Amino acid sequence: MRTPEPVSVADAEPTTDVRRYRAVRHASTRIAAPLSPEDAVVQSMPDASPVKWHLAHTSWFFETFVLEGRLPEFRPHHPAFRVLYNSYYNQIGAQHPRPQRGLISRPSLADVLRYREHVDSGIETLLARPAALDAQTLALIELGTHHEQQHQELMLMDLKHLFSCNPLYPEYAPAVNEPARRPTAVEPLRFVEYPGGQAEIGAGATGFAFDNERPRHATLLTPYALGTRLTTNGEFMAFVDAGGYQRPELWLADGWASVQREHWQHPFYWRCIDGAWHEFTLHGLVPLDPTAPASHVSYYEADAYAAWYGARLPTEHEWEHAAQPLPVRGHFMETGHYHPRPAGEGTGLRQMYGDLWEWTRSCYGPYPGYRAPAGAVGEYNGKFMCNQLVLRGGACVTPRSHVRASYRNFFYPHTRWHFSGIRLARDPA
Amino acid sequence: MRTPEPVSVADAEPTTDVRRYRAVRHASTRIAAPLSPEDAVVQSMPDASPVKWHLAHTSWFFETFVLEGRLPEFRPHHPAFRVLYNSYYNQIGAQHPRPQRGLISRPSLADVLRYREHVDSGIETLLARPAALDAQTLALIELGTHHEQQHQELMLMDLKHLFSCNPLYPEYAPAVNEPARRPTAVEPLRFVEYPGGQAEIGAGATGFAFDNERPRHATLLTPYALGTRLTTNGEFMAFVDAGGYQRPELWLADGWASVQREHWQHPFYWRCIDGAWHEFTLHGLVPLDPTAPASHVSYYEADAYAAWYGARLPTEHEWEHAAQPLPVRGHFMETGHYHPRPAGEGTGLRQMYGDLWEWTRSCYGPYPGYRAPAGAVGEYNGKFMCNQLVLRGGACVTPRSHVRASYRNFFYPHTRWHFSGIRLARDPA
Amino acid sequence: MRTPEPVSVADAEPTTDVRRYRAVRHASTRIAAPLSPEDAVVQSMPDASPVKWHLAHTSWFFETFVLEGRLPEFRPHHPAFRVLYNSYYNQIGAQHPRPQRGLISRPSLADVLRYREHVDSGIETLLARPAALDAQTLALIELGTHHEQQHQELMLMDLKHLFSCNPLYPEYAPAVNEPARRPTAVEPLRFVEYPGGQAEIGAGATGFAFDNERPRHATLLTPYALGTRLTTNGEFMAFVDAGGYQRPELWLADGWASVQREHWQHPFYWRCIDGAWHEFTLHGLVPLDPTAPASHVSYYEADAYAAWYGARLPTEHEWEHAAQPLPVRGHFMETGHYHPRPAGEGTGLRQMYGDLWEWTRSCYGPYPGYRAPAGAVGEYNGKFMCNQLVLRGGACVTPRSHVRASYRNFFYPHTRWHFSGIRLARDPA
Amino acid sequence: MRTPEPVSVADAEPTTDVRRYRAVRHASTRIAAPLSPEDAVVQSMPDASPVKWHLAHTSWFFETFVLEGRLPEFRPHHPAFRVLYNSYYNQIGAQHPRPQRGLISRPSLADVLRYREHVDSGIETLLARPAALDAQTLALIELGTHHEQQHQELMLMDLKHLFSCNPLYPEYAPAVNEPARRPTAVEPLRFVEYPGGQAEIGAGATGFAFDNERPRHATLLTPYALGTRLTTNGEFMAFVDAGGYQRPELWLADGWASVQREHWQHPFYWRCIDGAWHEFTLHGLVPLDPTAPASHVSYYEADAYAAWYGARLPTEHEWEHAAQPLPVRGHFMETGHYHPRPAGEGTGLRQMYGDLWEWTRSCYGPYPGYRAPAGAVGEYNGKFMCNQLVLRGGACVTPRSHVRASYRNFFYPHTRWHFSGIRLARDPA
Repeated sequence: MRTPEPVSVADAEPTTDVRRYRAVRHASTRIAAPLSPEDAVVQSMPDASPVKWHLAHTSWFFETFVLEGRLPEFRPHHPAFRVLYNSYYNQIGAQHPRPQRGLISRPSLADVLRYREHVDSGIETLLARPAALDAQTLALIELGTHHEQQHQELMLMDLKHLFSCNPLYPEYAPAVNEPARRPTAVEPLRFVEYPGGQAEIGAGATGFAFDNERPRHATLLTPYALGTRLTTNGEFMAFVDAGGYQRPELWLADGWASVQREHWQHPFYWRCIDGAWHEFTLHGLVPLDPTAPASHVSYYEADAYAAWYGARLPTEHEWEHAAQPLPVRGHFMETGHYHPRPAGEGTGLRQMYGDLWEWTRSCYGPYPGYRAPAGAVGEYNGKFMCNQLVLRGGACVTPRSHVRASYRNFFYPHTRWHFSGIRLARDPA
Repeated sequence: MRTPEPVSVADAEPTTDVRRYRAVRHASTRIAAPLSPEDAVVQSMPDASPVKWHLAHTSWFFETFVLEGRLPEFRPHHPAFRVLYNSYYNQIGAQHPRPQRGLISRPSLADVLRYREHVDSGIETLLARPAALDAQTLALIELGTHHEQQHQELMLMDLKHLFSCNPLYPEYAPAVNEPARRPTAVEPLRFVEYPGGQAEIGAGATGFAFDNERPRHATLLTPYALGTRLTTNGEFMAFVDAGGYQRPELWLADGWASVQREHWQHPFYWRCIDGAWHEFTLHGLVPLDPTAPASHVSYYEADAYAAWYGARLPTEHEWEHAAQPLPVRGHFMETGHYHPRPAGEGTGLRQMYGDLWEWTRSCYGPYPGYRAPAGAVGEYNGKFMCNQLVLRGGACVTPRSHVRASYRNFFYPHTRWHFSGIRLARDPA
Repeated sequence: MRTPEPVSVADAEPTTDVRRYRAVRHASTRIAAPLSPEDAVVQSMPDASPVKWHLAHTSWFFETFVLEGRLPEFRPHHPAFRVLYNSYYNQIGAQHPRPQRGLISRPSLADVLRYREHVDSGIETLLARPAALDAQTLALIELGTHHEQQHQELMLMDLKHLFSCNPLYPEYAPAVNEPARRPTAVEPLRFVEYPGGQAEIGAGATGFAFDNERPRHATLLTPYALGTRLTTNGEFMAFVDAGGYQRPELWLADGWASVQREHWQHPFYWRCIDGAWHEFTLHGLVPLDPTAPASHVSYYEADAYAAWYGARLPTEHEWEHAAQPLPVRGHFMETGHYHPRPAGEGTGLRQMYGDLWEWTRSCYGPYPGYRAPAGAVGEYNGKFMCNQLVLRGGACVTPRSHVRASYRNFFYPHTRWHFSGIRLARDPA
Repeated sequence: MRTPEPVSVADAEPTTDVRRYRAVRHASTRIAAPLSPEDAVVQSMPDASPVKWHLAHTSWFFETFVLEGRLPEFRPHHPAFRVLYNSYYNQIGAQHPRPQRGLISRPSLADVLRYREHVDSGIETLLARPAALDAQTLALIELGTHHEQQHQELMLMDLKHLFSCNPLYPEYAPAVNEPARRPTAVEPLRFVEYPGGQAEIGAGATGFAFDNERPRHATLLTPYALGTRLTTNGEFMAFVDAGGYQRPELWLADGWASVQREHWQHPFYWRCIDGAWHEFTLHGLVPLDPTAPASHVSYYEADAYAAWYGARLPTEHEWEHAAQPLPVRGHFMETGHYHPRPAGEGTGLRQMYGDLWEWTRSCYGPYPGYRAPAGAVGEYNGKFMCNQLVLRGGACVTPRSHVRASYRNFFYPHTRWHFSGIRLARDPA
């Protein structure tokens, strides 16, 4: 079992298409480096996929949407991979059923790594032919790198879930200590007020953004206030201790049904061992740090906590408006420490980027005037615009170059294996 | 089996609290009048409830929230009814499990009707004591009548589902013919354009409205166009014939999953019998009328139809803005004809009220500044604000006095037993 | 709600085909007499059927297998009943799905009673025409009466389950007291020894018996001993108190899985109310009588109790061999008391007939040389010969004329809504 | 991927405890030799286990039941393995949930192989100390080797299922051709008659046998006839072509329910590819051989086939009585060809041993006088004596030294991943 190399910041800042392509692809294989073939093949639940599948599927994306039809000499690594590693693109034909991704012991991890090299070689060849690089081709390659960054985060989420099912609680990687940031008391939560009014929301016409971030449009905001940092484990423990999981009046109806059906008593990865609270992390089982952000909560838990606190969750518009002036800086995947850290000192907004995705109360839906792109790539985002809630800001497992103020992540309200946390909002008095 | 008396319009326009209370309560018992005790006890699926349960639960509402604590001499009809007929108010203590409502063969329908009389007698006594009638009491009685009207619609929905499960396809009531409105060709669908801009949405501070319609607030609308009438069966049949239920690219991802899991091939109550399309209605099984509105479609079907058509569904704000100038007039429950009728002639918006609830693409959520009322009555609306979509305008089974421009109905995107239809919208060219 | 007339013994001893037919049919309607239409329509679980269904299905049997083709002037009461009231005879064409029997609110109970009269009139006409009564016809009518007696017991079982789901715990009928048999201490359990050897098992060639009781055949018995009476509630309580439901080593593997999945802690109808044990009966909720037989136990519970006691359950051959010399006498349905009574005094075998069906460890299978009859009636028994266990001796809800030493009842090992109890056996020292 | 060495016959005939122990343990690791770590970790369904789990669990058996308490210097390889690799022994404390065995990516396959060596070293040490080897210890070691042989067959069954889920249809090992046995026409099925009478059944007092084979006891057999060979694919195809899977009258009721729920149309591993029938085997996907035995049929399919043929399945007593005079010779695991072969020439009984397990109509239950051994080892067999049917004779994946005339295998009637086939029986004319 090898220790993963830290992913250096330099890799994530390519200046050209080639550099970005290489850096992103390399980051994926580095995520897989500490894994045994067994770690990479198992699917621990239907929502998760094996790491091997992620490694292959991201290559399938480049093969299918970029190489086929553009690089005449390209030959598929294996014809069956077209079906095995199609995820959900219904227009691309047959796909292997999602809940059975974990049954594919062959091809081996080694063969999938060869598949990656085969595709990389094809893309590099293509990128070396300026004549072949029209705008659509370059856009698809760029899209492919952002698609792959999404799967990098998914790999880390899925691995965490897999290892959490193992009574031995394996460590994925050693923690990256920051001596100056040892847990001490965090400052009390404060609220920053915003006056409301008309605001511009969404990605502008230039620069990379997903289709769901466009078109940029005006919206009306009523005055609001945002919490200065994420809710901590210590604060969430007070909710647990107050019987939060036993009080239906605090919960959305569907949330209370989940509490009862799933017997929820605490956040997803908390474990009470011999009377002491611990938390399972990608760095193994550790004592619960009351100053670190409460993580892996469902929307239902976030909403119930807010109700108990006497606050609410922000809308995605409120969040984006507050985030627009801030630099994209925070605790991201590149640190090699895959667990959120306590908020730093200060009186203003902290942790808006990184650490944990922040639940908003906004349903994931189309912006006014949104139209899904034509063709199979159009299945990327629009078809998921139902039943999910928007999360904002990225997490400690998100590549830094992947996030923006306008970036919209989304999950169902009942899931918990993602790195999600709580930022409170409220209406000013 | 008695034929139901037509519900006269006069009843639905009480001028005082007593008249409204009596009229609404009377309408419920008239809905039950054509039913046998067996019809009234069966629960045909977990989403539905027995008519007997509805008759009792609406009385429980007045007993629990109005009479107890306000009418000193009031004695409960039966103490166990507190549990048996509590629906979902978690703060009111134990409740009988929803999926088991159909197992309660005793108390009998006759006993439940006596329970209704007992509660009515208490409320009449209270209404005759002006000293007892503070504003909160009167507000709770008014809320109770609106609550009961919701259950009147539910009774008709649930009965329709029950009878649809019976291979004999029973008629609930004879159709009410309107000779002048026989199905002929409807006029082609046109779109009415709205310029967008700032609009005021929601119920104002006075007059009855549910808490979820408030506070009234400003919103920004981009220019939009609304279809002039509901989508017809004939139009929807073209979607079916074009393979609409076999083309994943037209569907939301969760919708496509429903299509495959539930084997959907057509709207909920369509039946193909010996090669001819029929539709099950509360007036029995009838040949499918191509000019009548397509009804009992899920949100997923409405959205897929709109995608196939090249349009979209409206937002609830767009709908409300367009409805605000219109009178609340249309085909409602009081006609005694519980099936939508073809659109009348004209070139402007028709069928905005009545006939069928109209799916919007808006998630059911809180308006800016919304706060649920304190106490158990506060469970009325707020706790359902997740995973559901807003429908607007009322249907042929909705009491006329129950609907407003600001009225928000809501259902999950996969359910179909409600009287729901499709009004298209689009962005102006 | 009327009190049911006691079913007199005379009715159950008809001397002619007509008398037996009338008596059996009359007993069914008397079982239904105390019921409201609501009681008769509800299906409380997939294993159970509505009483209305039983009343109709038993008539369907006579209509389908006897009247059609034999009585030229016979006209079906309603053509749709052929599908609605077919139970499981796959060869007779379509059948209404079993789990949806409770959704058929129409036809009404009154209409089903008219259906019974229509069929009765047909059978009486046929029985009055000696020329039409060949041996096969008479055999089918006799089979029909035994089929109906099985459904009489099912009606009482299914009603008990339905009422047990009602928090009001309704009484089906008043208890029939026997002052001389008040619960006092029962005598200690003893074992009667049998020497083993060759025994003849099964029904002989003459007289009515079901096909599964034939052919009569020899078997070898090793020496065995049978408990003198049924296990009592008091004895079973000792098993509960000894942690019987928490000790996996006492249980069959599939039984332990049921205990954990279903959270079994005690027999099916025991209820602990304010610290005192009660039992739900067709005579309402009563304090648990420690001297009465433990009833409504699954095979798994019976087997685990026997293991804990240091005994075992008998084989069906052992039981039948011991029962052969005994008269068919005991506590049956005709008493009108639908709950087992404590064993009487004596030193020999008691309660072999009546009170409760006795689990045997024998799988329900074909006797050597068994062949199912040809045609649809052949589906009666043979197709159930898998996964079920044999029970012997009849219960307090079984018609007396329905039971014999060779009679084989059968249920799955996990079900509990039947009147089943425990007779221990063991190998002699 | 290495090709597995053929398992030589010599290994399966040890003359001492040490030789047998070594040979059996070595055979397990040879089964795993062609597998990648990924192949060995995946669990393809709840009934199956990962090969890595089998390798560890068989070692756990020796560690727990033999080494602990008998070899003072023994130290567990890893304390957590006590829980991870306990299968079902409820008395031994906690066990990892069966359906989650496939989630344990760590320990690795390499570590499990080290665990095996650690246990082997302990057992060899113990076997070298004659003073420690009392009869019970030797009996437990012998039991452990038979236990391990059961898991060898399970490994091959489970691998076959896993590979069958992979669209690439991997080969586990190359086929072992026998040129003289190429598929040609098999001789017509004949029946050998047996006169019936008293027979002795079960294992005698000496020699190894499982507890469920004892005590040996007399039984009465009626005259019967046994088919001379297994039913072939060609014969079973005639049943398929005759609509066997569409005719409810041929099926047990529970079997017909399985047909409908699972959409069965043919045996488990048949695949129709471009109109041609194939069969998935451990040697890859091959054209269906009409002369080879029909394999991987459920009890329900075997019973329905027999009903269609006009025959029945044998009882386990009939089978054993016929097998007693025959030598244990046939096509077993040691051949390295893991697929049944066509019957050889001859007129008498063939294929009684090896090729495929043969379904009997006998429920798996205790013999007269059976008592489960005391302690945790007593959970081995007795607790499964419910709901399963007995199969006899061993299969092409069964170690030859594991089978006897009295050997009783057992499976639920609906499962199909085992190497099971059909030998017909009938009552003589």
